Amino acid sequence: MSERVLYDLCGADPDVRFSPYCWRAKLALAHKGLSYEARPWRFTEREALAFSGQGRVPVLVDGGRTVADSFAIALHLEEAYPDAPSLFPGGVALARFVATWADTVLNAGLARMVVADILAALGPEDAAYFRETREARFGGRLEEIQAGREERLDAFRASLAPLRTALGEAPFLGGERPAYADYAVAGSFQWAHAVSAFDPLSPDDVVHGWRARMHELFDGLLDRAPRAVAA
Amino acid sequence: MSERVLYDLCGADPDVRFSPYCWRAKLALAHKGLSYEARPWRFTEREALAFSGQGRVPVLVDGGRTVADSFAIALHLEEAYPDAPSLFPGGVALARFVATWADTVLNAGLARMVVADILAALGPEDAAYFRETREARFGGRLEEIQAGREERLDAFRASLAPLRTALGEAPFLGGERPAYADYAVAGSFQWAHAVSAFDPLSPDDVVHGWRARMHELFDGLLDRAPRAVAA
Repeated sequence: MSERVLYDLCGADPDVRFSPYCWRAKLALAHKGLSYEARPWRFTEREALAFSGQGRVPVLVDGGRTVADSFAIALHLEEAYPDAPSLFPGGVALARFVATWADTVLNAGLARMVVADILAALGPEDAAYFRETREARFGGRLEEIQAGREERLDAFRASLAPLRTALGEAPFLGGERPAYADYAVAGSFQWAHAVSAFDPLSPDDVVHGWRARMHELFDGLLDRAPRAVAA
Repeated sequence: MSERVLYDLCGADPDVRFSPYCWRAKLALAHKGLSYEARPWRFTEREALAFSGQGRVPVLVDGGRTVADSFAIALHLEEAYPDAPSLFPGGVALARFVATWADTVLNAGLARMVVADILAALGPEDAAYFRETREARFGGRLEEIQAGREERLDAFRASLAPLRTALGEAPFLGGERPAYADYAVAGSFQWAHAVSAFDPLSPDDVVHGWRARMHELFDGLLDRAPRAVAA
């Protein structure tokens, strides 16, 4: 058993891990070269997280330390493991800028493309919770929120302009090597990839090429991850 | 006369300089400690820029070199003056990410708050050009585009989330010291400040505090700049 445990959102299939914020944490752990147990956790297992003082994942238990929130986990790893490669070679502020852009612009766009696919990846109890909370958030039935996603592709792809121009300057947001800003954005794309066969990126987009590079990192951590996708 | 000339957009009053992209270039020149003549240029003076092979400012003439486009100017300065403090301590890609976010999200929001104020700052010939080209872009009369800006403030301030969280991590996007990412965003706010008394920022916003720090840089370059604002 690893000395580190990451509580990691899963679907009906415990091997399907789809939370964008948990993926950020796993990529940050991999960047630091740290082993961990990614313990499956479902939306409705609130009591399993009670020890953390809140109800959402990711939660990292690192020795005696409990850290919730993906950005707080990254800051913790940077501070606790200063000899491993930095997650923030460009400074914390710029990485936080990109992470919040992913939280808001990117995740808002992706959610409307895969929210019914997420629902389909959940067991009955989680599906009921997810439908109720997300339909209140989006103000409509999840199937209707997702419907017509092809017509929203142009606007979604236009919203990626900051990412696209940045990746015209270097192979990764971190420069020659990936860093936390890359992991923040990759987590969002992995969220969609884990539950949906729908790909919002055009193969001729520089963002598509970057995502392929991200998929290969850490022995294919993202590429090998089990998906809940109809064949 | 300086060996460097920057063609710099002005209003009816040649001392009122309001282009966000020209402000980026001036802040980048100041960061590198370089002197320059900021030569006033108006929208309709196309022939004065013919030498540059295109029709927009900023254009920097640096010795024998002519460079158009604010980001290209920053890259040129970084390459030509490597011994001066770097504009990109966090890497070029992340700075480009922020600059494109400012080009799109930030400038789109600000434009709808000050576009009629810009019009009022222009002489008759430029005003006719500006109205025609911008009304085609926005699909409406400029006065109507700007109307109701108070009601859009909440959505505009929400769109600043990436900037706001980043500035919760450090005094500047560049960290302890400002860098090109800061100048890219500051240029946009200066655009509004130069032509409008309307302030889209709340005084209790961390972004407001950052803007005040930006105003003080380089002996108050932004703070001292003449404005075209009704008293």
